[in-house]
Amino acid sequence: MNRMTELSAHGQSCWMDDLTRRMITSGELAQRVEQGLRGITSNPAIFEKAMAEGTDYDSDIARAAAAGHSTQEIYEDLITTDVRNACDILRPVYDQSVGADGFVSLEVSPHLAHATQASIDEARRLWALVDRPNLFIKIPGTAAGVPAIEQLLFEGININITLLFSIAGYEAVADAYMRALERRLDAGQPIASVASVASFFLSRIDVLVDELLQHRTVPDAGAGDGFNPEQLLGRAANANAKLAYQRFKRTLASDRWKALADKGARVQRMLWASTSTKNPVYHDLMYVEPLIGPFTVNTMPKKTIAALLDHGMIKETVEHGIDEAKEVMADLERAGVKFDQVTAQLENEGVEKFIRPFDSLMRQLAAKRDQHLEPVDLQSLEDMARKLRHLVIRMTTEAGSGHPTSCMSCADLLAALFFHEMRWDPSDPTAPNVDKFVLSKGHAAPILWAALYEAGAIAEDPMSLRRIDSTLEGHPTPLNPWVQVATGSLGQGLSAANGMAAANRLDKIDARIYCLLGDGECSEGSVWEAAQFAALNGLSNLVAIVDVNGLGQSGPAPYHHDTGVLARRFAAFGWRTLEVDGHNMASIVGALHSAREGGPTAIIARTVKGKGVSVLEGASGWHGKPLDFEHMQAALAELGDTGIGLRVESRRSGQYSPAQAPATSRRIKVQYRPGEQVATRQAYGKALEKLGALMPDIVALDGDVVNSTGAEGFAKKFPERFFQSFIAEQNMVGTALGLAASGKVPYAATFACFLTRAYDFIRMAQYSRPRHLVLCGSHAGVSIGEDGPSQMGLEDIAMFRALIDSIVLYPSDAVSAERLTEAAAHAEGIVYIRTTRPKTAVIYPNDEDFPIGGSKTLHSSNEDRLTIVAAGITLHEALAAHDSLERKGIRTRIIDAYSVKPIDKETLTAAARETARVLVVEDHAVDGGLADAVSAAVGSAAAVHRLGIVKLPRSGKKEELLDRHSISRRSIEQKALEIAD
Amino acid sequence: MNRMTELSAHGQSCWMDDLTRRMITSGELAQRVEQGLRGITSNPAIFEKAMAEGTDYDSDIARAAAAGHSTQEIYEDLITTDVRNACDILRPVYDQSVGADGFVSLEVSPHLAHATQASIDEARRLWALVDRPNLFIKIPGTAAGVPAIEQLLFEGININITLLFSIAGYEAVADAYMRALERRLDAGQPIASVASVASFFLSRIDVLVDELLQHRTVPDAGAGDGFNPEQLLGRAANANAKLAYQRFKRTLASDRWKALADKGARVQRMLWASTSTKNPVYHDLMYVEPLIGPFTVNTMPKKTIAALLDHGMIKETVEHGIDEAKEVMADLERAGVKFDQVTAQLENEGVEKFIRPFDSLMRQLAAKRDQHLEPVDLQSLEDMARKLRHLVIRMTTEAGSGHPTSCMSCADLLAALFFHEMRWDPSDPTAPNVDKFVLSKGHAAPILWAALYEAGAIAEDPMSLRRIDSTLEGHPTPLNPWVQVATGSLGQGLSAANGMAAANRLDKIDARIYCLLGDGECSEGSVWEAAQFAALNGLSNLVAIVDVNGLGQSGPAPYHHDTGVLARRFAAFGWRTLEVDGHNMASIVGALHSAREGGPTAIIARTVKGKGVSVLEGASGWHGKPLDFEHMQAALAELGDTGIGLRVESRRSGQYSPAQAPATSRRIKVQYRPGEQVATRQAYGKALEKLGALMPDIVALDGDVVNSTGAEGFAKKFPERFFQSFIAEQNMVGTALGLAASGKVPYAATFACFLTRAYDFIRMAQYSRPRHLVLCGSHAGVSIGEDGPSQMGLEDIAMFRALIDSIVLYPSDAVSAERLTEAAAHAEGIVYIRTTRPKTAVIYPNDEDFPIGGSKTLHSSNEDRLTIVAAGITLHEALAAHDSLERKGIRTRIIDAYSVKPIDKETLTAAARETARVLVVEDHAVDGGLADAVSAAVGSAAAVHRLGIVKLPRSGKKEELLDRHSISRRSIEQKALEIAD
Repeated sequence: MNRMTELSAHGQSCWMDDLTRRMITSGELAQRVEQGLRGITSNPAIFEKAMAEGTDYDSDIARAAAAGHSTQEIYEDLITTDVRNACDILRPVYDQSVGADGFVSLEVSPHLAHATQASIDEARRLWALVDRPNLFIKIPGTAAGVPAIEQLLFEGININITLLFSIAGYEAVADAYMRALERRLDAGQPIASVASVASFFLSRIDVLVDELLQHRTVPDAGAGDGFNPEQLLGRAANANAKLAYQRFKRTLASDRWKALADKGARVQRMLWASTSTKNPVYHDLMYVEPLIGPFTVNTMPKKTIAALLDHGMIKETVEHGIDEAKEVMADLERAGVKFDQVTAQLENEGVEKFIRPFDSLMRQLAAKRDQHLEPVDLQSLEDMARKLRHLVIRMTTEAGSGHPTSCMSCADLLAALFFHEMRWDPSDPTAPNVDKFVLSKGHAAPILWAALYEAGAIAEDPMSLRRIDSTLEGHPTPLNPWVQVATGSLGQGLSAANGMAAANRLDKIDARIYCLLGDGECSEGSVWEAAQFAALNGLSNLVAIVDVNGLGQSGPAPYHHDTGVLARRFAAFGWRTLEVDGHNMASIVGALHSAREGGPTAIIARTVKGKGVSVLEGASGWHGKPLDFEHMQAALAELGDTGIGLRVESRRSGQYSPAQAPATSRRIKVQYRPGEQVATRQAYGKALEKLGALMPDIVALDGDVVNSTGAEGFAKKFPERFFQSFIAEQNMVGTALGLAASGKVPYAATFACFLTRAYDFIRMAQYSRPRHLVLCGSHAGVSIGEDGPSQMGLEDIAMFRALIDSIVLYPSDAVSAERLTEAAAHAEGIVYIRTTRPKTAVIYPNDEDFPIGGSKTLHSSNEDRLTIVAAGITLHEALAAHDSLERKGIRTRIIDAYSVKPIDKETLTAAARETARVLVVEDHAVDGGLADAVSAAVGSAAAVHRLGIVKLPRSGKKEELLDRHSISRRSIEQKALEIAD
Repeated sequence: MNRMTELSAHGQSCWMDDLTRRMITSGELAQRVEQGLRGITSNPAIFEKAMAEGTDYDSDIARAAAAGHSTQEIYEDLITTDVRNACDILRPVYDQSVGADGFVSLEVSPHLAHATQASIDEARRLWALVDRPNLFIKIPGTAAGVPAIEQLLFEGININITLLFSIAGYEAVADAYMRALERRLDAGQPIASVASVASFFLSRIDVLVDELLQHRTVPDAGAGDGFNPEQLLGRAANANAKLAYQRFKRTLASDRWKALADKGARVQRMLWASTSTKNPVYHDLMYVEPLIGPFTVNTMPKKTIAALLDHGMIKETVEHGIDEAKEVMADLERAGVKFDQVTAQLENEGVEKFIRPFDSLMRQLAAKRDQHLEPVDLQSLEDMARKLRHLVIRMTTEAGSGHPTSCMSCADLLAALFFHEMRWDPSDPTAPNVDKFVLSKGHAAPILWAALYEAGAIAEDPMSLRRIDSTLEGHPTPLNPWVQVATGSLGQGLSAANGMAAANRLDKIDARIYCLLGDGECSEGSVWEAAQFAALNGLSNLVAIVDVNGLGQSGPAPYHHDTGVLARRFAAFGWRTLEVDGHNMASIVGALHSAREGGPTAIIARTVKGKGVSVLEGASGWHGKPLDFEHMQAALAELGDTGIGLRVESRRSGQYSPAQAPATSRRIKVQYRPGEQVATRQAYGKALEKLGALMPDIVALDGDVVNSTGAEGFAKKFPERFFQSFIAEQNMVGTALGLAASGKVPYAATFACFLTRAYDFIRMAQYSRPRHLVLCGSHAGVSIGEDGPSQMGLEDIAMFRALIDSIVLYPSDAVSAERLTEAAAHAEGIVYIRTTRPKTAVIYPNDEDFPIGGSKTLHSSNEDRLTIVAAGITLHEALAAHDSLERKGIRTRIIDAYSVKPIDKETLTAAARETARVLVVEDHAVDGGLADAVSAAVGSAAAVHRLGIVKLPRSGKKEELLDRHSISRRSIEQKALEIAD
């Protein structure tokens, strides 16, 4: 016996004001009925909330929309289904109480509160639709409601009369009930089967009366004439209810009622409604405990029921304090609160309070219905998702490694994308004018291969996953022709998608880029750099989908399944956002549809890692683990073999005519005077501007330093081909890669030191095998001077040399800078150009050629006792040292190693052999830079001496720093004297 | 003549419902009066909004709070000051109209709406405080208001009677006015000086009536009985007003009034209030155009005045359509809308509508007052900010470079921090238990130096800025003892601040970390990684301040001065946020005060770049440029020499007793069986766990890969010293650095390849000169196998070698892994440990020593024809090759180069000389790794041959990959045969 059943023992039924589909399907309603609940009412506000927050209704709506049903029809179908099911759950109560209890209430449209005939018509229809004896139709006790109530009761339809606030209102409906029964008797109809309750609303009375009392209370004032309106706060509703109950008892005592009761009439019970406490300073059961008594119902929301079960004091109380109640009502008048006016106002407001959520619900339903008007075969897509999961399980078990659970969480998303939403052509991976997909969460590669396989886009055996002879790698790379950019280092896909989306806009291709991210990778700052770029550039053709499976590699993701956090973040970064259940195909399809309307759009999908196989679902310890053979068999059995095959229709987005082939054969014109002082960073900018005019595919990016890197000219001249990337170098490089993947020739520049920020992006870019990707780092070395070490690029050569097949160029004057910038446009792969902050003298003629892999020997003689290899700023120091040494009778060979990688091994080795000594001088960390490259090239041909940065630099003048770090002309001379001695 | 003056010509005055201080100080009110405005009313809602959104009142509040005034006193002081000033601006209208117009209205507290005597008292007080003849005191026309109105008018106080909805209400106040005048005559007082208006409210009537009409309209239903309630929508208010005007005319026609008028009484005009259109489908002047006529006022909000001026139709209309008005009122009754009830409800709601914003205003005022209760000498702080600007201008001009404008935007923030909010001790840069400051926008270094100098914390000449012999570098580094971490690469400070805040928590130091960021650097994703970490770890002792000066280096910052964007982002990342005017000292001090209440808190400060010097303020093209001498002189003159000196009181936060000195002399116990297969990554984890037990200062960080890097054991055993950094490597390294700066010994681990993500942080870390910073990269090289290239660390050695003074360790078995992990705890500076994914055999005895800079020669003989140098996984391949070669009669020397940097030059050079040939084998890119280190070490002693990764790897089995990339035992053997031949 719990407090709810105790309540029943005192003659009061506990009903609940919270009917949702979830309540039914989860078994909660049945459980609560077990516990003693004796009735439930539906309510548009709760229905609206359930529909907005969950997806329980989505597939029904999708199906009904596809079947052409109107919003009104869909509403009635959904609600009467729920109500009918609830009636069935409560039916045992109804049967056991022989029709006295166990009811479910369903209201007519609140728009009919003042329309008698329309209320009658709708009540009849709903009654027939639900078709259950334990249904209550709710009709408000308004002036127009009363005749409707009488007529419907007369017809044998059970009525829950709502929205009663006053005793006068109660009297009218009590009379209507008795009249209806009398008419039934007159017509020879039975009356024991007709039921009614009169619902008295409580908390709203106190809310309004308290407000009016507070208007009559001067803050901080003492009691004036001894009567303080404050003492009436929170007392009106119960006083009114207790007096109403007294009136109810008088009805029961009347001869008229007794006559009906003798013929089997059921008591029209008093129902206390609106009984959750609104004012948090009041007791949470203030509308429950004082109103217990025979022939009553109390309809409570969940939290009030919880409070009741927890600490409710159950005793018969409804007839206690009647005199006090009368006093309260009298004092209210005395305080200037007119109770008639209060109840009239509350009735009006009550109608409004029903109408608002009802209209909102209908609007929401209409919107969901519209989303689904395009007929979609959801079942087929669901089957395909299951098939993809099936295949992924087999592939990863066969491979003995991989990430099946991370694939299963996004199977529905991929099925919806590849087999419904995306316009693409499975026969042509090179088509430009199609929607494209970037798998930022690269570890889910198996499901990408599975989708491509099922769509007929690849013929390769999916069971070859991760084999050394297969293009189906562990993480996607363009070894497989369907992959534009390599992913697998998390948080990089969205930047690449930015570049692809930007390229589409430049090429006037009206196709979208879809990027699938994991929730875990959203911890990477680069995702937010990318998000900002997309919003600032208005990339409406970009759709990010986040697979929020709530689990990282080592434990829960930082926000578990809270899709709201990510939605708020994307919104704060300027995106449209949609939150969906990532396993509800109707929701997914609807969200993808809605993403067509503008963007960038982020779809935040709540998913379950390992979805589809119970042992894996939401289980920890399964990241990156395949099933063993035995588990696989069980999993495959659980998933079942759908046998579905879906043909993907080849679709392209409009006509696409590629731009004219760029006129790449023309050389740029370089114009400097010998000895002119020009910074190589400025020469880079000039060359870029000229190249931009020659090659329409060239695009430029820069990290808020155009006035330092030299890119200013290009930015002004070709604003549509320039992408201001602000201080976000990772995204700058990632976007450049995406542009490259879409056929552009990107030049991205910032300070050399800040490219270290993007090293993971640069490292990954090599696996994307871009045809062109030019990165320029300005302000190399200590020669930048006073700004100090944070701004000095000292690791950049090491960083780029370590890439496979990279090209590292380091011009020393304006001519070589322009020529090497030009050469970069024609070289394949990743090219790094290192430029210098201070001006240096022009030493080469304007037409000089600078082949990649070459070098320039600037001084050479048969008497050379030492080869000095330098590049960039140190070349000028070396040249000065050469002259000084020459004056001292020491001949040195001077080599400009402008191509650090590939390095001119032949020339260097010959020089090493001929001069027996080599000195490398570089404005870079001594390890990993030019000296290492020269050592590797010359091998044992000669001892390689090194001058480079070996101690931490600081602020100072350029000359002071070159000297301090022993790479100045003076240091070189000194070292040369030492070595050549 | 404009439409406002046209209105006057028809006898209607236009008043405005929008009095704010800004309206007065900006000159807008005067301008509008010029234009024809004839009155204005104050309004708590507008006052509240002005106070919330602007800072016009902040300094007055701060001063009054400091002076000990109560909230009520502050309110009255602020509002009566505004009203008095407005009265003075309108005085010419009052004078020219001889007291007929030109009024300013001010209401008594809405809490007094039902309190007669209290209303009288307050009205008298406000009347005296404002002390202007053209003031109206507003009193509502409630039952309690009417006697107060009569009494006050009798006393000669002008009354604007508000909140009239009904004609009956009007009649009562008209009577009160006449009675008051009659009493004045009886008392021999003049009556021409007394004024009153009766304010009739309009739009609210339609809002409520329309709602009730809509309840009575069934959607989509045709007209039923021919009368459709919809036809009455939007008509009640005007009908009621027109009928009220008729009643007003009857008053004027009465003998009673005529008798008063003869004695000089002024007409009590009808005032139309609430005249902005609420329903957007209605005409915007619906409550203006139909109600024009003599003796009327229309009080409008700004937008209605704008509409009036733009397209108002001005003609005398108030007496048109009287019959229709009567019909409307009759039809309303017919539709079931009871007008008496409507007006009663509106009166109640009107009181509530006044109370809510009034209470909200008072709460806000109280909060602002509380913020300022601590007396602050704002003027001194403002003067100090000016002095800092002065100094910065001189320093940068003297240096000839630097970023003065970026300093000037944050001068007020620094003055407030260093001279007011921060608890610190200018005599002791090493104090642990003080608030600390991180200048993330490092280019503002000069203002940091200036603040430290003015506080007496540094004695160094500020004019030495950027000189090679000065610690006052261009960007802050710990060369200066007040700097904990080097900054200057943007977006890094907040991560370091995270580490420092976390260290404070570990050490139970109750001191805060303040981090000043620029708006531009908030484009860096790392800022958001840091923001997430701070929120997830509940770092309530962390305060970020963003200096939103709206300008980047090359142009506007992405969001210009929109502080809201950043506030929304910080909020979405879980922070408390405050937006302030960064040049309003009271606001700054208040925000800093409020940041004490919890956090992490972000203060988003709107500032002006170059603030204080007009030529620089908000000007583009001035980033990173000092003034020349001439401009400097002008700037200094403009700033003025304040001559202020503020002593910073030494303050510490509680007592701090450092933990016991760690027992570092004990060695960890290593226990493996020879030949046992253990991955070095697991051994790293084991050693870390043991070290954690020995050394309480050790902390560990990991990027959601504890189960891969081996850090799992430590995380479980020392949860409070483990920082889950999720997939955000930049912040992980930055936080580790911050922890190191606060004396911890951090070990941070992730996959080797993902440390590339943090290269800029690692590069910058060297300039922070951390005593200890251990970074571990697991999963090095192609030997990881099937996961493919994205997960392979192939550039990590190159990356770490390029750092100055770094230590790079690469263990090959579990024993060396544990010993090197242990050695790292005792080594100074940045130590990198490279570990391997697959298990390798234990080859060393448990007690073997692995000194940094050493190597192990595992096979050696006099007949060695080749030295094979390897480390990590390739050492095991080399050992196998050795055995196989030996079987073929070829002896090789095998060296384990576990210390890649510093490398064992001596041993390697000797081996090179002795064997004449060297082969380096490494699972790393061939450029920049071990081979380069060996080449540099052995010089020309022998030819160095290289086996390393030279082509792009792919997925595959470990053995297949070692083979494919020629670093397997077979490849080594083959190469050795080639070379040694």
